[in-house]
Amino acid sequence: MAIHHKYQEIKKKYEQLIARKNKVDENFYNGVYDRYLYPVLTSRHIPPIWKYDLNPVTNPFFMERLGVNAVFNSGALYKDGKYYLIARVEGYDRKSFFAVAESESPVDGFRFWDEPVILPDTVAEETNVYDMRLTMHEDGWIYGIFCSECKDKENKDPAAAIATAGIVRTRDLKEWHRLDNLKTVNSPQQRNVVLHPEFVGARKYAFYTRPMDDFIETGSGGGIGFGICADIEHAVIEKEKIISERKYHTITEAKNGAGAVPIKTERGWIHIAHGVRNTAAGLRYVLYCFATDLNDPARVIASPGGYFLAPVGGERIGDVSNVVFSNGAVRNENNEIYIYYASSDTRLHVVSTTVEKLMDYVFNTPEDRLRSRGSVNQRIELIKMNKTLLGMEK
Amino acid sequence: MAIHHKYQEIKKKYEQLIARKNKVDENFYNGVYDRYLYPVLTSRHIPPIWKYDLNPVTNPFFMERLGVNAVFNSGALYKDGKYYLIARVEGYDRKSFFAVAESESPVDGFRFWDEPVILPDTVAEETNVYDMRLTMHEDGWIYGIFCSECKDKENKDPAAAIATAGIVRTRDLKEWHRLDNLKTVNSPQQRNVVLHPEFVGARKYAFYTRPMDDFIETGSGGGIGFGICADIEHAVIEKEKIISERKYHTITEAKNGAGAVPIKTERGWIHIAHGVRNTAAGLRYVLYCFATDLNDPARVIASPGGYFLAPVGGERIGDVSNVVFSNGAVRNENNEIYIYYASSDTRLHVVSTTVEKLMDYVFNTPEDRLRSRGSVNQRIELIKMNKTLLGMEK
Repeated sequence: MAIHHKYQEIKKKYEQLIARKNKVDENFYNGVYDRYLYPVLTSRHIPPIWKYDLNPVTNPFFMERLGVNAVFNSGALYKDGKYYLIARVEGYDRKSFFAVAESESPVDGFRFWDEPVILPDTVAEETNVYDMRLTMHEDGWIYGIFCSECKDKENKDPAAAIATAGIVRTRDLKEWHRLDNLKTVNSPQQRNVVLHPEFVGARKYAFYTRPMDDFIETGSGGGIGFGICADIEHAVIEKEKIISERKYHTITEAKNGAGAVPIKTERGWIHIAHGVRNTAAGLRYVLYCFATDLNDPARVIASPGGYFLAPVGGERIGDVSNVVFSNGAVRNENNEIYIYYASSDTRLHVVSTTVEKLMDYVFNTPEDRLRSRGSVNQRIELIKMNKTLLGMEK
Repeated sequence: MAIHHKYQEIKKKYEQLIARKNKVDENFYNGVYDRYLYPVLTSRHIPPIWKYDLNPVTNPFFMERLGVNAVFNSGALYKDGKYYLIARVEGYDRKSFFAVAESESPVDGFRFWDEPVILPDTVAEETNVYDMRLTMHEDGWIYGIFCSECKDKENKDPAAAIATAGIVRTRDLKEWHRLDNLKTVNSPQQRNVVLHPEFVGARKYAFYTRPMDDFIETGSGGGIGFGICADIEHAVIEKEKIISERKYHTITEAKNGAGAVPIKTERGWIHIAHGVRNTAAGLRYVLYCFATDLNDPARVIASPGGYFLAPVGGERIGDVSNVVFSNGAVRNENNEIYIYYASSDTRLHVVSTTVEKLMDYVFNTPEDRLRSRGSVNQRIELIKMNKTLLGMEK
């Protein structure tokens, strides 16, 4: 059967994009990680057959029949030498779904599999799903924890939503088994839930949560919570303990939430989370890090002050500007770490670092002293030390 | 002692940046002022020894230990042939502090002094300080009026803050004496407070204020206030008079505030203030001007309609997009005026003009007629006059 003549041209551009090698951005330096020139996934990385009807009879103008608006917040997995991203793909209709992209390189070459993920449709009122974290758990399953959102029918506002954590598991990212949505007894809503990769205590599953009162506003208090449950198939968390608080005049002032699945290092679990503050131009999302104890992942043992990563240049602009967000990072056998982060709810980027560097950052960056004067003192201590080193001062 | 080998490379880039000559932006023309191609201060202008520990033993990866996020809203002073900026420097931890940068040129070459300013720490609950205005007062002191912010402990929201005006004075920008924070009897909060450079009445100190009910929202009414006090060491303002009001459907609709210390000219005090309106994407800040009487600085004698300066190009984007803000401008002995303004809470720029031009702008720009029809009439009058001049109409 005939294929529209325009297809080859579109396909060629798509293949060029997928084949494009990424490069370290030489204009950026902070010693902690390398940024890359190109995003690793964008809406242009969507296979043309997902958007166009190729039949020249039914689509004479070779028109997009189902556009894709954005490809962003992605879970990540490194397995058997390959890098997998499970992206949040958003159509022109604002609905999100998940799709797996695979590459042999951590920084380029990501190609979506033939078809998006089909999640078991077990929650009739679920309107939207997004932001999956992939946890390779020591029980042998790969878990996907995602946000499952439905309309708040008791609220008159047509935009009011209720968010909870959906749970699926798989062996191969292809066949997905859906378990009950997470129940947190003291928190009617949840977003940014992450499953810890190891058992805690007597084969208990541990989750990082975010107790929420409303949908977007986190209300007073809150922060990143921690809770455990015995039965992952019908997960119920009775108690949540706040492990990373919202704090006045810090980068978590307005809200915060868990991001990537914690990375196990020799010195502790390293967490890459997001912190949010309010501005006259809307919310600003940045990434920050902290470390928890290897044996007690709810006990924070290092809290570098300030942000780890903030949007720069073109990253600042998008559907939801002034946002960086990460829900996936991987460590490979060479102790390289790749952190995938989306900018402004529009596209997905990567930064690379190493286990050694990330540990140095997390354990040797001074803590936030919470006051301007504390920050000045901290900086003057650094300056004086450097001046002595440089022989500028005795 | 050994210095990390990476330091020289980073230092070289920094020195190249400081040495870069600025140029007038030839693509911009409005006859009122010249814009310049490069910002005068950015986070890249921070000396490397403020960010990196240079010791290769304690910082083997040459990692930023204390990053700087932004350098923006700066007070300004011209003294003995030199230009001084007292910038708001914001660390990755969101805390701001002040630092002096100096140059022999008003438009480039600004280099920070070795260490940031250490303000006397007399207000225990003060969390953040920012936006200092430098007033060379006729009493012989250089005053710095800044925003002193602390947590609102009675508000459950962790982000709630209380802002007041801090007051310091100095002879040399090095040794700072702190006076009591300003008390305004009828306004529990203050931001954007400016000290008038001359005595008013019988050796009274005059302040431009902004009566505030809440923190970000100015509440109903309000505007730029004016008040006087006798004792600068324990400054109390009993009465504030609004001199530049918020007005419906003007550039001050949402709020406004004093900016640079007023510039004395033959025809009056010229004020460069900011006006704010709300949009679907957050607040939009622009600069506007007005003039007050030489003998009665609370009496407005000229109000050019509309804005004086709005963000263009890359200025539009930053941590808080769609913002220009000025808290510093200088006049030199050649009657040149340099207005320093920050864009989007991220970096500092300059425009240059002359006393003559600025007076022409302030006294000959038509006033805001407050209605679409008034604006059309105003414009048609101008067009008809020009058509007559061009011989297009009799």
